[in-house]
Amino acid sequence: MGKLGKSTLTFENPVYIRSGAAVVGPMEGEGPLKEYFDEIKSDLLCGETTWEKTEAKFQGEAIHLATKKAGITPNLLDVVIGGDLLNQLIATNFMAKETKIPYLGLYNACATMAESLLIASTLISGGFAVNCAAIASSHNSTSERQYRFPTELGVQRPQTAQWTVTGAGAICLSSLGNGPRITKATIGRVIDFGIKNSNEMGSAMAPAAFDTLETHLKDTKQTENDYDLILTGDLASQGHRLFKELCKKKGMAAGQNFQDSGILIYDKKQDVHSGGSGAGCSATVWSSYLLRELSQGTYKKVLLIGTGALLSPISVQQGSTIPSIAHAVVVES
Amino acid sequence: MGKLGKSTLTFENPVYIRSGAAVVGPMEGEGPLKEYFDEIKSDLLCGETTWEKTEAKFQGEAIHLATKKAGITPNLLDVVIGGDLLNQLIATNFMAKETKIPYLGLYNACATMAESLLIASTLISGGFAVNCAAIASSHNSTSERQYRFPTELGVQRPQTAQWTVTGAGAICLSSLGNGPRITKATIGRVIDFGIKNSNEMGSAMAPAAFDTLETHLKDTKQTENDYDLILTGDLASQGHRLFKELCKKKGMAAGQNFQDSGILIYDKKQDVHSGGSGAGCSATVWSSYLLRELSQGTYKKVLLIGTGALLSPISVQQGSTIPSIAHAVVVES
Repeated sequence: MGKLGKSTLTFENPVYIRSGAAVVGPMEGEGPLKEYFDEIKSDLLCGETTWEKTEAKFQGEAIHLATKKAGITPNLLDVVIGGDLLNQLIATNFMAKETKIPYLGLYNACATMAESLLIASTLISGGFAVNCAAIASSHNSTSERQYRFPTELGVQRPQTAQWTVTGAGAICLSSLGNGPRITKATIGRVIDFGIKNSNEMGSAMAPAAFDTLETHLKDTKQTENDYDLILTGDLASQGHRLFKELCKKKGMAAGQNFQDSGILIYDKKQDVHSGGSGAGCSATVWSSYLLRELSQGTYKKVLLIGTGALLSPISVQQGSTIPSIAHAVVVES
Repeated sequence: MGKLGKSTLTFENPVYIRSGAAVVGPMEGEGPLKEYFDEIKSDLLCGETTWEKTEAKFQGEAIHLATKKAGITPNLLDVVIGGDLLNQLIATNFMAKETKIPYLGLYNACATMAESLLIASTLISGGFAVNCAAIASSHNSTSERQYRFPTELGVQRPQTAQWTVTGAGAICLSSLGNGPRITKATIGRVIDFGIKNSNEMGSAMAPAAFDTLETHLKDTKQTENDYDLILTGDLASQGHRLFKELCKKKGMAAGQNFQDSGILIYDKKQDVHSGGSGAGCSATVWSSYLLRELSQGTYKKVLLIGTGALLSPISVQQGSTIPSIAHAVVVES
């Protein structure tokens, strides 16, 4: 364990990724990553009376599936760490109530999965825990009405808008194992580009993603070419283009190894405009697609950059800009 | 570093409390702890245009005062860890934007300060950070309208209701120093007593506080008498009475060493009904009163139990019960 440079942690005692599981909604199940997801739901309620309860249920199922793959039961987890986008994190709170696992709730918007992996890794590498689950989720129907307009209103969305992913992703980490490892992480700081339009979150988050990438590469004395894949959370088309422009301005190539989870999860013909977003976006893509491709040797060293827009409807209504954050996590197979 | 029993972490590499600072509103400044607070504001806006911005400002001032007392500048902090009660943590997000310190956002309702101290201690004891600030806040005017009724409505409150504290508390922790130390911490699990009345949060949280205390004493093979002070977060009169009843049922004395921050912060004649609450309640009491009394030798070994009611207005409206959590932190001088 230790610290590199300004903001990067290094995990000398190994942190193994034992397993991951993703439970998604119908639209995600029609997208390009459908073969990777563990469970695809055919509707947005799944027998519950409210979307919020469904989101909590998805989290519980993701925890159960991930622990099963790791060969443990949920009660063997020392702690579950994570969050969601709902006010007061009710999806995660109610999952934690059902699973009865010691629980640490986090909120860094759509960067929550990266934050969860980072904190879980410090607990494991620091010798404070053996088995941890990192989790995050979002639900299109709970988010849309909380952040934007009543779902029934059918308001037209601009082309810069993103589509909130319905899904929960859980990753089991352990001090025991032999699979891919989390070796480093960089804690982000809040960057505010001055954007006030809550339908341009990708643009708001791009400078934070760039700041964290630059800090990470400086702290670790590496370049972009040291990574097979630099996978951002949910910048989507608009934000990812800006992120690559910022990188190119500093002399990087920002080529084929730069990918974004919000672009990967939907097909263009699904009419999601800029792409996917939500705390469940990176959580589901990383816990399914990324882990499978790592195990198949497609990637050997990956930099995950979770990106979060730290706005609320109140802060937007009060005329505030959108502060953003990004946390980075290094996964090596 | 290591783990004791089911849920307790032990910090073998020392985690020193370097300093603390509390910035509070006018009503807290008229209460019994007024001599302990670093800054008492004479109004609830303090020159800002919205209460939410004022809450963020209080956090920034608490960070500046606490770092000044610790003999460092905010930019020497490796990370600031914390949260507040506002949807999407906008007070903490905007503080982190202004201070530009690497930031990890947390949410466990009024248990957030205990959670912040716990996670900051793992980072320091694990060797991942030298200086961390733990922070939490609440503001009566931002909370009341978010959780209950429009402030202007003047709705009558039942006697079981608590008064949300206006204030921010910050504590600077470091691997360097010689003052009081955080030596252990217990991660809580979610306990749901079945209470649905959001004006009875003390009662909802009492079983969670008891569960964490019981787990902590079992994990560490101690009794209640090993602590000069067992200081809960914000159970207030109603919740604290229930908490002590639960302890007595298990054979504890639950005597004079059982205190509650929500009872300490206001005088009965201040008409706050059951007492204080809010993420700022434990944060301001612990960062001022507790630290001063520790330095003066009044207490030598203290168990802090942060208590959080994990409800949201949506979960209450949907008929859900109030899940609750408590995290414990041991401070020894």
